[in-house]
Amino acid sequence: VIRDVCPLVPEGVHFVPAHPLAGTEFSGPDAGFAALFQGRWALLTPPAGTDPDSIEKIAELWRHCGSMVSTMEPAHHDRVLAIVSHLPHLIAFTICGTADDLEGESRQEVLQFAATGFRDITRIAASDPVMWRGIFLNNREALLEMLARFMEHAQAMARAVRWGDPEYIEDKIHRGRVIRRSLIELKQA
Amino acid sequence: VIRDVCPLVPEGVHFVPAHPLAGTEFSGPDAGFAALFQGRWALLTPPAGTDPDSIEKIAELWRHCGSMVSTMEPAHHDRVLAIVSHLPHLIAFTICGTADDLEGESRQEVLQFAATGFRDITRIAASDPVMWRGIFLNNREALLEMLARFMEHAQAMARAVRWGDPEYIEDKIHRGRVIRRSLIELKQA
Repeated sequence: VIRDVCPLVPEGVHFVPAHPLAGTEFSGPDAGFAALFQGRWALLTPPAGTDPDSIEKIAELWRHCGSMVSTMEPAHHDRVLAIVSHLPHLIAFTICGTADDLEGESRQEVLQFAATGFRDITRIAASDPVMWRGIFLNNREALLEMLARFMEHAQAMARAVRWGDPEYIEDKIHRGRVIRRSLIELKQA
Repeated sequence: VIRDVCPLVPEGVHFVPAHPLAGTEFSGPDAGFAALFQGRWALLTPPAGTDPDSIEKIAELWRHCGSMVSTMEPAHHDRVLAIVSHLPHLIAFTICGTADDLEGESRQEVLQFAATGFRDITRIAASDPVMWRGIFLNNREALLEMLARFMEHAQAMARAVRWGDPEYIEDKIHRGRVIRRSLIELKQA
């Protein structure tokens, strides 16, 4: 967005890209509600050299909506969002697709016994296909890098399962658990 | 379990393997509570030729705990559990591990901005490492097959993102969404 818009911005006009980290799996004006932005983050990614007064005006706009505001360098923003949001969505869509491919009986049982993990990991997979298609294509580089890192981890785990390396498996599970516990402690879970 | 236990069972004794699909991320007797099995599934996987009266006794035991009972052929059980439970856990541990590997600043931001997908997809990653290590190693074949299917889907999605194939991406997201919507309709979400 910044690469495409900035060359078109006339002198004396300031462009302050921003978006909220808020929303549900529903899209459009009807999916809004009064407390949608309350206590949620809004991210500002002003390009280098943006007028500080303009940045503050946009920050104030979000604060009036109840948001907490964080400012990030655009490229860093794309990497952070790739891991906290885009990769989790890609994975949720993908595991749903994997289940959808199973033969009839197993597919039915996925739905029947979903309460054992599948349900949790696919909660975010009901999101809007057109919006997510755009997000994946526009954050291509950062998303592919995070996906590649994830695939390396998954392959290493597959190898440990295949060859029976209990220490490796336990250590990886333990490390994952530490991250999860940190979320609980930070009251983000 | 069946392969190892069955040869040791004396004549006149009947072995009816069973387990509940219930529990939290906590383990041990202190993590139990009175309604733990209420309205949840218990799966029985009797080997071919098991005495029907014995199966019914075990089924009745679970029903007294409030469970719904389903009987499955053991190998089929392992495949179904691999996709509904074991693969989602492996993925949740793995994406936590991926985040844990990031450099300091990004890692901190994963925790800060987790509400955007990461939180949901890692909900199950706080589970017990020793228990999950055992599950992964004991259901090796079925888990590796489901993981391989998942990786094929993820690689295909990566390729569509890299080369910019919006129809493919949208179709995959849409298919994932259908599975998720089915869960909601079946009141499993």
